[in-house]
Amino acid sequence: MGEFDLIKRFFARASTPLQPGVALGVGDDCAVLAPPAPGAQWLVSSDMLVEGRHFLATVAPERLGHKALAVNLSDLAACGATPRAFTLALALPRADEAFLAGFARGLFALADAHGIALVGGDTTAGPLNICITVMGEAPAGQVLLRSGARAGDDLYVSGSLGDARLALEVFRGSVALERGADFEAARRAMECPTPRVALGLALRGLASSAIDVSDGLLGDLGHILARSGVGATVQADALPRSALLAGQPLALQRLCTLSGGDDYELLFSAPPAARDAVLAAAAASATPVTRIGRLEAEPGLRLRDAAGAALDWSEPSFDHFKVS
Amino acid sequence: MGEFDLIKRFFARASTPLQPGVALGVGDDCAVLAPPAPGAQWLVSSDMLVEGRHFLATVAPERLGHKALAVNLSDLAACGATPRAFTLALALPRADEAFLAGFARGLFALADAHGIALVGGDTTAGPLNICITVMGEAPAGQVLLRSGARAGDDLYVSGSLGDARLALEVFRGSVALERGADFEAARRAMECPTPRVALGLALRGLASSAIDVSDGLLGDLGHILARSGVGATVQADALPRSALLAGQPLALQRLCTLSGGDDYELLFSAPPAARDAVLAAAAASATPVTRIGRLEAEPGLRLRDAAGAALDWSEPSFDHFKVS
Repeated sequence: MGEFDLIKRFFARASTPLQPGVALGVGDDCAVLAPPAPGAQWLVSSDMLVEGRHFLATVAPERLGHKALAVNLSDLAACGATPRAFTLALALPRADEAFLAGFARGLFALADAHGIALVGGDTTAGPLNICITVMGEAPAGQVLLRSGARAGDDLYVSGSLGDARLALEVFRGSVALERGADFEAARRAMECPTPRVALGLALRGLASSAIDVSDGLLGDLGHILARSGVGATVQADALPRSALLAGQPLALQRLCTLSGGDDYELLFSAPPAARDAVLAAAAASATPVTRIGRLEAEPGLRLRDAAGAALDWSEPSFDHFKVS
Repeated sequence: MGEFDLIKRFFARASTPLQPGVALGVGDDCAVLAPPAPGAQWLVSSDMLVEGRHFLATVAPERLGHKALAVNLSDLAACGATPRAFTLALALPRADEAFLAGFARGLFALADAHGIALVGGDTTAGPLNICITVMGEAPAGQVLLRSGARAGDDLYVSGSLGDARLALEVFRGSVALERGADFEAARRAMECPTPRVALGLALRGLASSAIDVSDGLLGDLGHILARSGVGATVQADALPRSALLAGQPLALQRLCTLSGGDDYELLFSAPPAARDAVLAAAAASATPVTRIGRLEAEPGLRLRDAAGAALDWSEPSFDHFKVS
């Protein structure tokens, strides 16, 4: 099957009516975006997924299609943007129809759930590689950034942390889970992350800063601290985690919640006066949110254990150029 | 060197003032695009480059950085868009500083020449893969499309065709060039294509259709014919070619000009009444343009040789999923 047949067969949904934000979709040299709402701006982000780094060869194609878009939607969520359009560039070792059918199914299910349209892209032969670029819109001045945190703000995280890392450790053979159902739950967290788009939208005008947790909580919090010029104290043992993870040894819990990676939760700050409003935003978006610490003028990151004592934690954050 | 250090060292030019079209560049979860000019729209295109398919392992990193952006700018050119912003996603087998320094030098030299800003992206370990997504703007209703060609229109192509394919055939060992300078010239065409951005802009409101020639003239002309619902007659032996290629055997000339691939010239149509205006656009953009045929109501593509006789040509267009 040639490149153009592939595109037509699995990715060109010509019968789909144009979605908001799209003036011209797949099929020309460029896609054309419709103007955003008056006063709004376009936001853009790209993520590339490589086998062995961002997913394992064992992942089902449908879940891979989901994840490839989910990690990009998570970047829009972290900025409080409404998803509009995306491009997909795909390198494949061979034109494997079963793979492509599953991949497209998972991709489009998530795309349709968020009203985001595939508007273009590229396919080529090569080692498996998936690069998606997402575009979304947000009112000018309401984009959530990493740089807006202030000393005194509360620090929050959505959902729960660490299950994706737990699954990775099982795949690596360093952790064993007794029940198959437990492994499937952890694996699902790793392979099917939920981008927190609705929460991001609900936090516009409310959160002082936000980032999505993709490289581990501590690493990503470090970006907020550096960009905002503040420090933080985090209640390490109060970080939200699944019942499954809470049943593991404490050292493993800390590794997974603090340095896990692949969580795709939102880490954000808001002033204490906004606590009720944050809870209301969480409720409105049906997304659990936990207050995990406080931002402070003193630079640096301080971790506290369950007894309130200082916790020394030197595990590096997940880095795609290191074997972690 | 870790991922964040790599980004900072080679790709984050924080001191660069924000360029037109950019409200927030590298360094947050998303980049923010400034609104386009009143009445204009954003255009988007993605291309992925894989070693052995789109470039050879022997290419100098600086030329690879140039080419990766050039092929994307060529898509904007084909739509008549002004380049504004791009994202770069890069998978690298290892953090090779000499490679990255050269790659960034070639990339930014071309980016600066076209006033397009790097606003975000991704880096990861993995088999070498380069995915760039470009964004540009054009006045609504003036975007050049593949679908606007009409029977009776003239057909044109910019620059010259076939040198990139000639170089590829030399690398493959199927062609030998006697003079080293000849090989270098052909190789330069393959590795350092010139995106015809200025010509694309000059053709707004003038060309009835346009596409960039990336997969071979015949294959790309086929897209215009299919989208526009027209046929064409092309003077095959009158296609513009370099003196170097014109000195090769006729069969090789035809292969390279008709089915070459990697030309990145603009193929476009315009009504006969616009001939003077097309010449003026070519002159204004300092880009050679050659009239190569005519669009007709009769479907299909007809080739004529130098004597005006029908030329039967069955070489398939370059397809990234076939060994051609």
